[in-house]
Amino acid sequence: MNKINRVESKTEQVEHKLVNGVNVTKLSDIMDGIRSNPVISKFNFRAKGKWIGGGHNQTTINDFYGACQTHSRSQPFVYDEDEPPILLGEDHGANAGEYALAALSSCLTTTLIYYAAAQGVVIDEVETTLSGDSDLQGFLGMSENVRNGYEKIKVAFKVKSKAPKEKVREFVELARKRSPVFDIISNPTPIEISLQE
Amino acid sequence: MNKINRVESKTEQVEHKLVNGVNVTKLSDIMDGIRSNPVISKFNFRAKGKWIGGGHNQTTINDFYGACQTHSRSQPFVYDEDEPPILLGEDHGANAGEYALAALSSCLTTTLIYYAAAQGVVIDEVETTLSGDSDLQGFLGMSENVRNGYEKIKVAFKVKSKAPKEKVREFVELARKRSPVFDIISNPTPIEISLQE
Repeated sequence: MNKINRVESKTEQVEHKLVNGVNVTKLSDIMDGIRSNPVISKFNFRAKGKWIGGGHNQTTINDFYGACQTHSRSQPFVYDEDEPPILLGEDHGANAGEYALAALSSCLTTTLIYYAAAQGVVIDEVETTLSGDSDLQGFLGMSENVRNGYEKIKVAFKVKSKAPKEKVREFVELARKRSPVFDIISNPTPIEISLQE
Repeated sequence: MNKINRVESKTEQVEHKLVNGVNVTKLSDIMDGIRSNPVISKFNFRAKGKWIGGGHNQTTINDFYGACQTHSRSQPFVYDEDEPPILLGEDHGANAGEYALAALSSCLTTTLIYYAAAQGVVIDEVETTLSGDSDLQGFLGMSENVRNGYEKIKVAFKVKSKAPKEKVREFVELARKRSPVFDIISNPTPIEISLQE
């Protein structure tokens, strides 16, 4: 992971360059592909939720659409969400707000890693610490002056790399600028809700 | 789950009313508590992220602050996030965008269930189907006209209940109106990013 590896692909007879575990040869191929046929850049991600009881839900994630076809995982990912006892649940998993922090953390980190890889810059370690302030009065409808969700989210990055500090700061800035989940949380995203009757 | 249960708490000598698995006696106590001392409504949720390699990250969720104290789970929840091979990962878990859908699904469902419970309305089943449209040109910085995150998210609810359809529609509307994660995705949420140096 910590050095640039070159991997021979026997089937394709091309040299693949790996940086930070990211195949930057393929990354460059994807970008070339999108330039010649922008429709392959369209993705559709999916999830199915099921209420188990009380504050406990399960979300199953399997197939998605991208590059003009539907892809399925070898096995679906199944995640349990629940509330802690103080919020009337039984702690079968993290709660929805915590899942949102997990989504943000991993999205910012992956964006940082992919952009560093694209520039050939080796990153040794990345750690994030996130927290979100919330006031129950919003969710409970007890005050119209309090929002339902996080009032503010804080993300602290710790990055180890032999690259100059200025370069690391640049990748943190690129993570903010390009992370899909940073975008959907910090900017408005339209959500259409329907009820099957 | 499908009927209103009354549970005697031997220690407290009070009758607890459970609807949909939610202890509505405690829910009402929480609201009374907040009315007399609003500071107990303040929560702070937390997550720690660690980059594993390539598109693979791990998020650990354990303690949170709420009702004037820090709470810890009996064991931390550890979630793996990764990209599928077509996005240069190895599928060790759902990706960040899919985690965001899981957060939204569970938050809307729990909000619906808690509000129905508070009104004493029994819900038999809830299922959700979510999808989000995304265009890689945003993340890759290939077009300033394409956003990084989801252009639009669709959520379809399927709810089984003996309650009148109008009532079920009302709870779906309350889920939209009060869900914390619906709020942070559909409205702007400030995110402060720092880099420890």
